[in-house]
Formats: sequence, structure tokens, C-alpha cells
Amino acid sequence: MKHALPVTRDADFAAWYQSVITEADLAEESGVRGCMVIRPWGYGIWERIQRLLDDRIKATGHENCYFPLFIPLSYFEKEAEHVEGFAKEMAVVTHHRLIPDGHGGLKPDPAAKLEEPLVVRPTSETVIGTAFARWVQSWRDLPVLINQWANVVRWEMRTRMFLRTSEFLWQEGHTAHATADEAREETRKMLEVYRDFAETCLALPVVAGEKPENERFPGAVATYSIEAMMQDGKALQAGTSHFLGTNFAHAQNIRFQNASGELELANTTSWGVSTRMIGGVIMVHGDDDGLRVPPRIAPWQIVIVPMLRDQPEDEALIAYAKDIQSNLAGLTALGEPVRALLDLKPAKAATKRWGWVKKGAPIVIEIGGRDMAGGNVSVIRRDRLYREDGKLDAAVMPRGDFEADAPSLLAAIQQALHEQATARMQAAIVPAADFAAVEAHFAEGQKNPGWVEVQWSRPTGAALDQVVERLKALKLTIRNAPGDQAPADGACVFTGAPAVERVLLARAY
Amino acid sequence: MKHALPVTRDADFAAWYQSVITEADLAEESGVRGCMVIRPWGYGIWERIQRLLDDRIKATGHENCYFPLFIPLSYFEKEAEHVEGFAKEMAVVTHHRLIPDGHGGLKPDPAAKLEEPLVVRPTSETVIGTAFARWVQSWRDLPVLINQWANVVRWEMRTRMFLRTSEFLWQEGHTAHATADEAREETRKMLEVYRDFAETCLALPVVAGEKPENERFPGAVATYSIEAMMQDGKALQAGTSHFLGTNFAHAQNIRFQNASGELELANTTSWGVSTRMIGGVIMVHGDDDGLRVPPRIAPWQIVIVPMLRDQPEDEALIAYAKDIQSNLAGLTALGEPVRALLDLKPAKAATKRWGWVKKGAPIVIEIGGRDMAGGNVSVIRRDRLYREDGKLDAAVMPRGDFEADAPSLLAAIQQALHEQATARMQAAIVPAADFAAVEAHFAEGQKNPGWVEVQWSRPTGAALDQVVERLKALKLTIRNAPGDQAPADGACVFTGAPAVERVLLARAY
Repeated sequence: MKHALPVTRDADFAAWYQSVITEADLAEESGVRGCMVIRPWGYGIWERIQRLLDDRIKATGHENCYFPLFIPLSYFEKEAEHVEGFAKEMAVVTHHRLIPDGHGGLKPDPAAKLEEPLVVRPTSETVIGTAFARWVQSWRDLPVLINQWANVVRWEMRTRMFLRTSEFLWQEGHTAHATADEAREETRKMLEVYRDFAETCLALPVVAGEKPENERFPGAVATYSIEAMMQDGKALQAGTSHFLGTNFAHAQNIRFQNASGELELANTTSWGVSTRMIGGVIMVHGDDDGLRVPPRIAPWQIVIVPMLRDQPEDEALIAYAKDIQSNLAGLTALGEPVRALLDLKPAKAATKRWGWVKKGAPIVIEIGGRDMAGGNVSVIRRDRLYREDGKLDAAVMPRGDFEADAPSLLAAIQQALHEQATARMQAAIVPAADFAAVEAHFAEGQKNPGWVEVQWSRPTGAALDQVVERLKALKLTIRNAPGDQAPADGACVFTGAPAVERVLLARAY
Repeated sequence: MKHALPVTRDADFAAWYQSVITEADLAEESGVRGCMVIRPWGYGIWERIQRLLDDRIKATGHENCYFPLFIPLSYFEKEAEHVEGFAKEMAVVTHHRLIPDGHGGLKPDPAAKLEEPLVVRPTSETVIGTAFARWVQSWRDLPVLINQWANVVRWEMRTRMFLRTSEFLWQEGHTAHATADEAREETRKMLEVYRDFAETCLALPVVAGEKPENERFPGAVATYSIEAMMQDGKALQAGTSHFLGTNFAHAQNIRFQNASGELELANTTSWGVSTRMIGGVIMVHGDDDGLRVPPRIAPWQIVIVPMLRDQPEDEALIAYAKDIQSNLAGLTALGEPVRALLDLKPAKAATKRWGWVKKGAPIVIEIGGRDMAGGNVSVIRRDRLYREDGKLDAAVMPRGDFEADAPSLLAAIQQALHEQATARMQAAIVPAADFAAVEAHFAEGQKNPGWVEVQWSRPTGAALDQVVERLKALKLTIRNAPGDQAPADGACVFTGAPAVERVLLARAY
């Protein structure tokens, strides 16, 4: 079977990933180091993610705000662990004017040097914490529940589109609470929002759980994540939720008078997901013909391609196609109006078909003169592209039947993508009873080892460092301790001590 | 009559503007020079603006993308006029790492100096033009119609919230076309989208027209604007649309093969509106009690305030209020579901009432025990806050009547705000037949002189410079030449030559 992409997943997963991004017109190199251009199809997916997640963030009582892009150096200096975690990858603004350099070019004006350099935000705990300190005086002002959609910059040395770029887009939630319990509950609640969003909207099966101490967000007391399994068996951290305790409140002076009139530090949280999620969607749902976009986040769910021939008959064909489009647009699927596009671009029908297959539109319908004469359409489901004999599966059916079935078909595709990914992930998580079994499982040459679940005693400090080093030799990291797990009943595979919980080991992006 | 704001428009318009922003919780100083924090009510208005304008941008065939925040210096150096226009106010990134400064603080790491400094985008013509050069090869690739929602930075020396901030939020459309005619048509089409959007959604009457040569966007062949009149008679440029000709295509090398196989330069356009529009909404619709938000862009259109007393009866009152909220949420007003909030925050009802009056929620309904017993609600319309006797106009009416009327009430408020502002603007635009009349009109001591319309011969170059200087002495600028105007029939008020068009003169933000 010949496929639409120049490289298969099996031949070279990394090259395949890049080819999906290129061939599906998702993004491209910008010429600016580490920064990508997100093209309309890629950005359309991000807009769908924004819309659906934003609804959930608002439904849980959060309001959107906007905070400055620039953060004064002094704000960072207050939280030592935090700055330690980010200082190495910060873009720093030092001047506010350009002047001619005398060689026909430009240079920063030495006379316009900033007194205090500004950091382009890598994350906004410090600047938002400073605002919280102004907003919070009394227990009556709590909780503060806010979110922002923004761009952030982390100066990554090795970048990969969507997964690791110097600039990326995300949402960052920030909240302040009167008690640690309430803040911990918020942290877990938003983790659950992410888990449910990933499963329901992105059709991404994920494991939600707590990260080990060494993987915590700089300055956090506890960090939780959702982890998704890519088709090469690696893990992708697809969202995080942090309980920050009073660390940032102390640094930023977020204090309130409690009901008894005493001054207390607030407890804060932060949580975020980013354009990285799109990388996860590609590596979980893509196949050798390109991307497969789950219908809920597809910018266009149904693309109608009339087979135009630059002939007078085209007019009737376009009218027929428009009528179908208009009927589809009146339908509701997966709780929203159906998004149906009529593709009238000047290109050959076959080129357009394969263009939409590579982009991963859930359903492509083609209409030729014969289809129209019979009152039919020819339907291609992106999740079942080929018949058993390897030929393209284009089902000719009466247009009325298709229109009636379209909503349930879209729901079925959404579900099928989720089921396929879930089955693959579940099959690829296996337990290991001791470290030798871990080593054997991840022995060299294993192309797709998946993840291993082990029991451990949750060592800390130097003992944890040792564990991390042993895992590093196998290129492994501890992803998280699944929140939904059976009680530990064995020995720690690292220390031999009685285990307290199970954690997942994996190679990761 | 006592008003909710500490200062009236009449006493000090600038201080009043600032007090609306503070008292309506729209935005606040961030502690970062020239950058503001946009608070939930202000950001909610921006989200409404985004949603409604984005629909129109998409309906006219444009797709959203995302381009890098950072632009290499060399990109700017290619278009001389463009860089000349922006070089003085650019934030420049020169380093990508921080290290300890030896005094407990941090400093940019000299070893991590960028080879080529990066500019934080003040606008994206150069970086988007570079992408267009990659995307456009043949006439078949044209037109390219894209838009992005983004933050941009212009290092302003004197800032004022929403009107002029170092960082602001906007959308910037960028298009490329095969012919100048087509690009000019696009420029005018988007100007009309802005005009209609401002009038319909923001209830802002505006004059759409072409800017004079001296007010063009740096690098543009023609710049068009919509101009709104604030309550102090000053003009606010609320949106611009630029025909760039082949200037940027030449600088960025955007060439295509035409149908005859010859290589041609594309013609490009750009157009944008920003968070500045919120400043316009404040200064057009605000009154001495705070903001009045047009219902189409109000985050909450109807706010329900039950008069709670920390008594057992509260429960029934809340149930009654919830029922009303749920009925309202099921209604459609101005083409969208009604946005109704139930305010259960722990504060006194009167405090909440005045809070929502200051924020400018179009309708506030209060419900006390007596209202509930009678099956009533007490309705406050923000556009008619007081009765003739100066008392608050809270109309008690059966809840069923209110629910049935709510959609038409919201539409009526939207219309009333537009009509008030239109009447005010129309009355304040007066013709002047010669320059002496202009001088007399704008003589000192005139508190609110509005705008003057004059006929002119459209001088260019040095002759235009002289005109600009004469106007500067009166603190005036030429706003635009209204697109919808009677033919010129007199002499130029500046040169005495036969006039070719009418232009508006005004003081401006």
C-alpha cells in the first residue's frame, strides 16, 4: 500500500512527525531561531482547543485576565528555586530603541539601555503573584481564580515544533486560597479538568498523577501531570497542575486577614497546557497518510470536494455541493454545529482529496457528475481510509442518508480514535517486579518498549538522586504516580524497602 | 445628584477616565513600566470584541495564524520607511540567559549574548511578509488572506491605560494579492468591516476615511482609519487599514508567476484594531457613575442581585433568583444567548448594585423578599439610571414581564447608546470656510470644540508640512477625509487653491 507521507512511522518516527507537520500544513520554521509559524490548519486546531478548554475553565469559576509580557528581574530574584529553574533559558530585553550602526544596519541604542532589564515571561507566577498581593487583603477576597491565554518564551537549545519551541502559546491558571486544603483541592480539580478534556476533546488517553519530587515545577510543593503515550511508546507530559503552598505567597507577599483578624499567607496554585498538546495529537492519532484530527477539535469536520472540470456542468455540481454543505451546517454533532467546508480552490480533485487526508479532516466527501445524477455522495472516513484489499474506501451513498448520519458518524470517529489510542496505551503499560526486569524491558534494540509500572518507596533527597541516575542510564524518567491505582503491596524496585505507591517509568519527550 | 465616581467628566475628563478604569475594575498599573494588568471585567469586554470581530474576519475569508513574537533586526532593515517609523520605540532582546550578579541579584549573562538582537514585534509586516514570500509562487497561491490575534510592544514614553501602553493586544490582518486593484479593494473592505463592527457591536459612531499623507503607516501607500469622537470632543483613531502597494513585497521579495508566466511583485495590505477600542468605549459611553457597556460586548448583560440578609429566608430568595437566571439564559438577544449572572458574593446588596453600575452592566435586577412575595423583580437600566427627580430609577415589575421583555430591552439599550453617541458626534462636527474660522473655533478656553470639517487641495511634501505646522499651533491634526462626503466645491482653507475634498480637523488621543 502506498501512503501519502514520504516516510512511515515505522521507518523513522521523528522524520515522520516532521513530515506530518509539513504535509498537513500545521506549522513551519519561521527563520527566527526556535520559533515556528503556526499555519491556519494548525492554528485552527489550537483555536478549537482554546474554545473547548476555555469553556471548562470558566465553568469551574475562573475568569480570564491579561498580565504583562515583561517581568522585571527583581520579581524573579524573590523566589530562589523558581529563578534557579528558569534563569538559564530566559530572553532578556535590555534596550528600548534602535539606531543606525553606521554600516547601513541597526543596533541597540546604548543611550536607551533599560535601568532594570526585563525578562520575557517564561511563566507568570511572579507577576501575577504581585497582583494578587494587591488584590487580597481579607479572607473575603479569597479565593482568587484567574486564567490567562498568552505566549511565553523559554530559550530552548534544541527545539522541535510544537513539542519544544522558544516561544509557545498556552493558558496559565493562577489561584489563591485561604487554606492549603482548598488550594490542594483546586490543584486536583484542574488536573481532572485536563484529564477529562484530553480524553473527551482530544481523544487522548492519559494517566493523571503526581510527579516525583525531582520533576516538580521550580518552587512548587507538589506537581501533578497528565501523561500521554505516543505511538513510539514515549511519554508526553500534556498538562501540569501545581500546588505552590505558601512559597510564592511568601516571596510576593500575598497575605490576608483571616476571620479572626490575624494575618496569614495565602496558598496558591498554577496550572497550564500549551500548544505542545498539538504535538501529542499528531503522535497519538497520526498515521502514514498524515494527521487524523479528532472531530471535536477539527477546524473543519466535513470537507466537500466537488470534482470540477472547468466545464459548464460545474455550476450544477457546485449548487448540489452547496446545498449539502448548508444542510450539514444546520446539524448538531458532539454538542456543536457541524463545521462543513466546501473546497472550491483551483486544484485537481485528487490533489485536494489527498491534501485533506494529510490534514486529517475526519470526513471528506467527493461529488462527481455521476454522484450528483444518482443523488449520491462518495464518503471517505479518515479513521478507516482503506478497505481490506488496500484500496481507498470511498463509500457511495444517498446524500440524504449521509446527511442524516453525519452527526453520529462524527461521534463514532471521535470515539474510534479514543478507543484505538486507549487500547494501544493499555497494552503497552506493563508491570516490572524488580529493577532487573526494568533493565530487561528497556534493553537496547527494543523499538517501542512502552511504559513500565513499578512499586517504589518514594525516596527523597540523595536517595532519589541515585534513583534518577540509575534511570538516566536507561534513558528513563519517572512520569508520575497514577492517582487511580491499587494500593502498593510489594517492595521498592530501587531500594528494596516496602513500597508506598506505583509509578510509571518511560522514555519521554 | 450624587454620582458613583469620585470625579465627573466635566470637572476633569482625564481624571474621570482614569477613575472609570479603576472603579469599574477594568485594568490597573502592573508595576512594569507602561504595561497594564487587564482585569476580568476589562478582559471580558476584550473577549467579546475578539469573538464578534473574529467572526467577521472569518466571514470575509480570512484565516487565523500565529507568527513569532521576535523579529530579527535584519528583517526590519529591509524597509527603510518602516524601520524609520518604529526604531525609536522598540524593545530589544539581546541576551538569552541570566546569571548571579554577585550581589544577590541577577544580570544578563555576557556569554549568552545573541549574535543578532531580536526585536519584540511592534507590528508583523516584516515577519509575515517573509512567510508570504515562501507561500506565494504562482498566481494560484493568491490571494493570501490571514489574520493573527497577538500582543505587540511599542516603547511609548508617555502611556495611558488602553489608549497608549507599551504592550497592547490587537489583531493584525495581512493579505497579499495579484493586483493593486484587488489589494485596494481589500483595504477598503476591511475598513468597512471595522466601521460596521464599531457601529453595530461597540455602539460607536465613527467616520471612515483616508488619512492624509503625513499620517500614513510607515511604508504604506495609503492608510484609512475609523475615527470616533470622545465626550471631550477629541478624536480617537479606533482602527486602521493600509494599502501597502508593492513596498513590502519588494522588501520581503513576495513574487509570483502570473498567468502569462511572468514574475510580478504581489500587492499587500494590513489592518488592525487593538485594546485601544476599549478606551474609546469608555470615553464615548461612560458617565459620571462609571462605564456603560453596550450589551453586545458586555461580559454579563444582566446581573441579578438578591438582597441577602444572612437569614434562613435567603435560601428561597436564591432559588427564586436562580430560576430567573436560568430562564434568561435560555433566551436569545441580539443574536446570541443572553448572558445573565447571579451575584452571590459576600457583600451588601447596595455595594453590589453600585459595583455593577460602575462596571456598566446593561441591566441590574435586584430581588428582595417583597419582590419575591409579589412575583416581581426590581429593574435598573444602566442607560437610564435616574428618574427626572434625580432618584435611582428602579422599576418594579412582574418577573414574567421582565423575562419576556429582556431581549428587546437589551436591544433597546444597545440602540440607545448608539443613538446618544451619534447625536453628540453629529452636533459637534461643524464646517469652517476658512482658516480664520478654524482658529476662532479652536480658540483657547473652548472646553469641547468637537471637530471641524474643511475643504482642502490635498497638498503634499513641503506644502503639507506647512499645513501640519499651522495645525500643530492649534494642537490640531487632520483625522481623515471621510469616504462618504459631498464633492468639494470651495477653496482650500490652507492654500486658497481649488479644494479637492473635505477633511476633518480635531484634537486627538
